[in-house]
Amino acid sequence: MADSDGQETFFAYMENERKKINDALERYFNKVSKQVNDQHMGKIVAELRDYTLSGGKRVRPILIVAAYRMFGGTGDEIYDAAISIELSQSFFLIHDDIMDRSDLRRGKKSFHRRVEDIIGNVKDREHMAEALAIVAGDLAVDYTFESLLEADFPADKKLMALKQLVEIIKVTGYGEGLDMFSSSGIKLTKNDLIRLHLRKTAKYTLEGPLLMGAYLAGRTHGLEHLKSYGNLVGLAFQLHDDVIGLFGTEKEIGKPPKSDVNEGKQTLLMIKAMENTQNEIRSFIQETLEKGDVSDGDFEKLKKIVAESGSLDYSRFLIDCFVASGKKYIGKIDGNDAERNFLIWFAGYLVSRKY
Amino acid sequence: MADSDGQETFFAYMENERKKINDALERYFNKVSKQVNDQHMGKIVAELRDYTLSGGKRVRPILIVAAYRMFGGTGDEIYDAAISIELSQSFFLIHDDIMDRSDLRRGKKSFHRRVEDIIGNVKDREHMAEALAIVAGDLAVDYTFESLLEADFPADKKLMALKQLVEIIKVTGYGEGLDMFSSSGIKLTKNDLIRLHLRKTAKYTLEGPLLMGAYLAGRTHGLEHLKSYGNLVGLAFQLHDDVIGLFGTEKEIGKPPKSDVNEGKQTLLMIKAMENTQNEIRSFIQETLEKGDVSDGDFEKLKKIVAESGSLDYSRFLIDCFVASGKKYIGKIDGNDAERNFLIWFAGYLVSRKY
Repeated sequence: MADSDGQETFFAYMENERKKINDALERYFNKVSKQVNDQHMGKIVAELRDYTLSGGKRVRPILIVAAYRMFGGTGDEIYDAAISIELSQSFFLIHDDIMDRSDLRRGKKSFHRRVEDIIGNVKDREHMAEALAIVAGDLAVDYTFESLLEADFPADKKLMALKQLVEIIKVTGYGEGLDMFSSSGIKLTKNDLIRLHLRKTAKYTLEGPLLMGAYLAGRTHGLEHLKSYGNLVGLAFQLHDDVIGLFGTEKEIGKPPKSDVNEGKQTLLMIKAMENTQNEIRSFIQETLEKGDVSDGDFEKLKKIVAESGSLDYSRFLIDCFVASGKKYIGKIDGNDAERNFLIWFAGYLVSRKY
Repeated sequence: MADSDGQETFFAYMENERKKINDALERYFNKVSKQVNDQHMGKIVAELRDYTLSGGKRVRPILIVAAYRMFGGTGDEIYDAAISIELSQSFFLIHDDIMDRSDLRRGKKSFHRRVEDIIGNVKDREHMAEALAIVAGDLAVDYTFESLLEADFPADKKLMALKQLVEIIKVTGYGEGLDMFSSSGIKLTKNDLIRLHLRKTAKYTLEGPLLMGAYLAGRTHGLEHLKSYGNLVGLAFQLHDDVIGLFGTEKEIGKPPKSDVNEGKQTLLMIKAMENTQNEIRSFIQETLEKGDVSDGDFEKLKKIVAESGSLDYSRFLIDCFVASGKKYIGKIDGNDAERNFLIWFAGYLVSRKY
């Protein structure tokens, strides 16, 4: 990788890494598919393969590889370990979509909807498809651990990375649960919310993968700055995602634009808008989130309130602060320049989708 | 443990092991509970703790410990590793009960029903409870890996045991999936069925735990006889469980006696009964399994057919064969007598619930 800060160099670097990660995923699924010896579950595993291979920007495994290289790791066995986090992504998305009753994911059918097509016109079809999707998610989390266990690394480094993987999945699980409580109408404070985001996104998308890469390279000390970078940039990424979720198009979001609102998601955008407004408007926000199935008119009104109340600017301000501050921590890390430059660029890239 | 074959000695041994396993589970949950720092998910984890601690005969962790001791393992750290399989049991049962829409487990409310009590009268309560139960199951599988990762064993032994744990969960997942296909009305052959049982029960309940114990003791070769014992006795255990499931009382089964039939479960009892009968009776069996919600009269008629067609005797015959043959393999194992004697006794104990 060049150590220039040119966009194109970094995009080419990411594209190249993505290809190697996809190759490793294919290798893994080729091995797993051979072990399934009945045609029915064979179809489910084939669908899981397609689901995992066809979507996703591979941000998390790319971060595992980048941290590994930053701390001196050289071999290509890192790709076999890095796919573990991508398999956990399939696990989370599949179960998430069942929990949120989402029909779409990445612009395509969600996994349980795909299973409906596989099983055809059986008795109790919808429930059966959900049940099989629960099993597929359970298999994906098992594959998550298996892929890392099978990767060619010394036992001590592998155990460190495995412990971090366990931590990532645990923290993400707590976040998902809290998210469900929030959707069911339980009021969260701004602090609860930041904690939820920190946990669920920052740990899972940034800090966790970076630490896994570091551990696999044998680096176990002096990782505080890397953690700070992960937490700050992860938080910015989640806030940015919430903004896209409200103001983006269906194509940008990957599901219908009203999804977040219909799910009653209590984002910082909503909480801050309620803080900044008075009785009537505040009640409107609250009721719109509670009742679901928002009308076009109310949806536009809600967006207008979020923008005009200063809530949108507040999120934008935080995003900029967190990214700037995250970048500074990279400067303090004792590691290779090429990957440090990549991580500095990457922080901005993550929040660059326009809104 | 005494090496006598007296029932009482073995029962006392199991009771003693059970206590140590429960202590290790308590230690683990004490640690985990402290890490959850919001009250909502705190309640879910507390419920998971109660669910895991209050039920189950601890057959699987007892087998891990027995194999460990049989191959010379001495320390008490084995209990911290053995609970991993009990945590995976919570994971499987929680997700299973959602998939099967079961309200009861071990004679108490199933986990998603318990969650309904926790969340109270929220919007979309039933679905929210199921969603949170999916998350709780996902946390339990993460705890499964964490408990083994944190146990105090040398890295190489731990990695071997972890790989076996991954294998157990994978094979069980395939079995569960096939089970769902079967419940949705897809016809399974007798071979499919034996394979399903071998996978799901034999691997998960017998072979897998025994291998984990062996690996943790550092034994990695000459395990064929132990595997054969596990497969045969596991198969017998599943067949016996199917018999109890049809002919047992609610107390013996832990859920309503008609559950298996209402779920359309294609047990060997049903398949053999269909093989042994003619058109009308065969159609009756098939239709009863397909339509669910069986009447008292039809349920009694079904049991009578299974008994009189020779199908019940066929299962009984297989159970006896498998147990006898499993016991013989123990004789060939190069390990300590005390645990070998226990495993010989244990094979009979597993299929001793009366019917």
